[in-house]
Amino acid sequence: MVAVVAKAIHTSPRPTVGVVGAGQLARMMAEAASPLGVDLHVLAARPDDAATGLAAVTVGEPVGEGLVHFATSVDVVTLDHELVDLTALARAAERGATVAPSPAAVLFAARKDHQRRIMAERGVPVPRHAVLEAPDAAEVERFAAAIGHAPVVKSAGGGYDGRGVAVCDTVAEAREAAAAMGASGAVVLEERVTFSAEAAVVFVTDRDGARVRYPVVRTTQQNNMCAEVRYPSGLDEATEDEAVAVATTVADVVGAVGVLAVELLVTASGVLLNEVATRPHNSAHWTIEGCVTSQFENHLRAVLGWPLGSTAPRAGAAVMVNVAGADEPGSVASALAVEGAHVHDYGKEFRPGRKLGHVTALADEVGRARVTAWAGARALGTVLTREAP
Amino acid sequence: MVAVVAKAIHTSPRPTVGVVGAGQLARMMAEAASPLGVDLHVLAARPDDAATGLAAVTVGEPVGEGLVHFATSVDVVTLDHELVDLTALARAAERGATVAPSPAAVLFAARKDHQRRIMAERGVPVPRHAVLEAPDAAEVERFAAAIGHAPVVKSAGGGYDGRGVAVCDTVAEAREAAAAMGASGAVVLEERVTFSAEAAVVFVTDRDGARVRYPVVRTTQQNNMCAEVRYPSGLDEATEDEAVAVATTVADVVGAVGVLAVELLVTASGVLLNEVATRPHNSAHWTIEGCVTSQFENHLRAVLGWPLGSTAPRAGAAVMVNVAGADEPGSVASALAVEGAHVHDYGKEFRPGRKLGHVTALADEVGRARVTAWAGARALGTVLTREAP
Repeated sequence: MVAVVAKAIHTSPRPTVGVVGAGQLARMMAEAASPLGVDLHVLAARPDDAATGLAAVTVGEPVGEGLVHFATSVDVVTLDHELVDLTALARAAERGATVAPSPAAVLFAARKDHQRRIMAERGVPVPRHAVLEAPDAAEVERFAAAIGHAPVVKSAGGGYDGRGVAVCDTVAEAREAAAAMGASGAVVLEERVTFSAEAAVVFVTDRDGARVRYPVVRTTQQNNMCAEVRYPSGLDEATEDEAVAVATTVADVVGAVGVLAVELLVTASGVLLNEVATRPHNSAHWTIEGCVTSQFENHLRAVLGWPLGSTAPRAGAAVMVNVAGADEPGSVASALAVEGAHVHDYGKEFRPGRKLGHVTALADEVGRARVTAWAGARALGTVLTREAP
Repeated sequence: MVAVVAKAIHTSPRPTVGVVGAGQLARMMAEAASPLGVDLHVLAARPDDAATGLAAVTVGEPVGEGLVHFATSVDVVTLDHELVDLTALARAAERGATVAPSPAAVLFAARKDHQRRIMAERGVPVPRHAVLEAPDAAEVERFAAAIGHAPVVKSAGGGYDGRGVAVCDTVAEAREAAAAMGASGAVVLEERVTFSAEAAVVFVTDRDGARVRYPVVRTTQQNNMCAEVRYPSGLDEATEDEAVAVATTVADVVGAVGVLAVELLVTASGVLLNEVATRPHNSAHWTIEGCVTSQFENHLRAVLGWPLGSTAPRAGAAVMVNVAGADEPGSVASALAVEGAHVHDYGKEFRPGRKLGHVTALADEVGRARVTAWAGARALGTVLTREAP
């Protein structure tokens, strides 16, 4: 028995990171965890979710006592998505679980009403908006009159990749959308912002509050889903500076340990906050090959209380293109035939419109990287085609 | 039922690669397999082997009908080590398994007697040697007299990382070593080569015979185990050219699909072949961060019949240092505190002398990369210290 105890003392303890959700973000976390000797344990909705082949797996919904039990069974628990029972996570933290990011931080990503309210209070520029706690046709009319056009209607909770968002052409449409969404919870009405570009600023914050930042990127959305991310952003320096300033205030307010992605709209009257995500984010997938330390490795380092790594880029330009199958799947082999295409196939079953993978290319300048990344993504599967080079 | 069939047709089939062995090479293969959407299935000697957390696992010895069954149950089978039943692998190939590399190629790595005999026949410069099929004290005396010193005694099969190798100071020692090793099989006697440097040339060959090559590296061994790998090699151009020429002949003779590592000795009278490995190899771990496509990704591409990726380096210099615990383990966190250290912890239990991980650093020149890599490796665990910067 003494020998066993001695062995236990001499064995470097390897931590287990619990991840709520087992999609492609958890899968890429697992790819980053392995070289660090870190074991992942995922709470998966389905046994064949993308990350389940690379981690210990518990199948279950991210709610209630099951979530509390999961969170208290691992060394630290983090998230693959925001659609989780934050009350249960808070209860787990009270019972001694290390939850990173905190439920209070995740609330900014999970609840659009909360995010808009607090950010506006703290002076962060946000689109004009109104929160409806219950369906209220008169309020939709009043808000439309105030902004001068039919509002965008967003579910306050539960949406992602454009789900839970209705861009309306008429006030009648907006009333209907608000009534439909409002049946299951609060609704946010927003002005339809005219923007010249979308940008993202991604931070990683450690447990002591020390923070690193990846370079500003320009993002392009199609069908409310991220289609392309470019570094460098191509934005002028003043706009990049403004984006970083706005995003830094957001990061201060949210206070999330781990990755925080801040999505921004560049408008004629300045940079506005669009969305925040308190987890690794599509706008920083390019960092896997493009930076010294990827967002996934830095997220793990942060939630484990380990030193953060350099966010310096490793090439003059990087472009990431998502593969969101529209008609039929392509093939990994044909994508690999594109010289310089870094292929990421999430191992997910094909379904039209589903994010199935992404391709990143590095180059000296962004134009060449775009050509390679789009060629690789087209070979891997059907991509959204607007603005493709 | 029709719907299910239609779904199966529309699903991009993802291949499963079987790996015989589940050590750190299989673990790093799994890290490379995930972005390609490839599933790994390992045949592990023990359920807690390094790769078992990242793959489907069968626990069993790599021999007989169990190995045949494993090999025929996956889309392609490849190797983490050479200590396998090659007869069973050949039988699996006859029964329709795709085995890459072929058993005939692996024989060059598994059997030193076979390698020396065939390479000498094909004009590859090798150390002076003699093969003893059974213990034969008189032959040891004769060979020692012929070379003018006590020979090195090597087990013809079954050794790695210096196991199965006896460097002898006297002929009497050599006789004893040959008698001991010869009890369990053939023995190779070799001259003790005086060399100025060790180098390695690593190729990847696809199923059609097309071949790519990584840059020549200089390796340093301590206690018969690889301690450090440096790119660029620092060898003069003529020596690099000679190393590539010798290694290319070796590659032609071996004919291995996948990674082939050729270890060479640089002597006053030319470059000699030392060892060959028909699998991903320690001398190319630096390619994970250091090259556009790592040896692990290229090995998978090769055995799957997919296009090979660029082997171009991504930095002016790269240095890899192994962590082979001598006294007690270090910590991942302290290694990550070394800026620019790329940490690879294999998740293995600490045991003195065991390879537990490695650290790679990139820089503009090799001196700076060495300082970072050694600092990171020392923090991760005790390293062998000779020649450390």
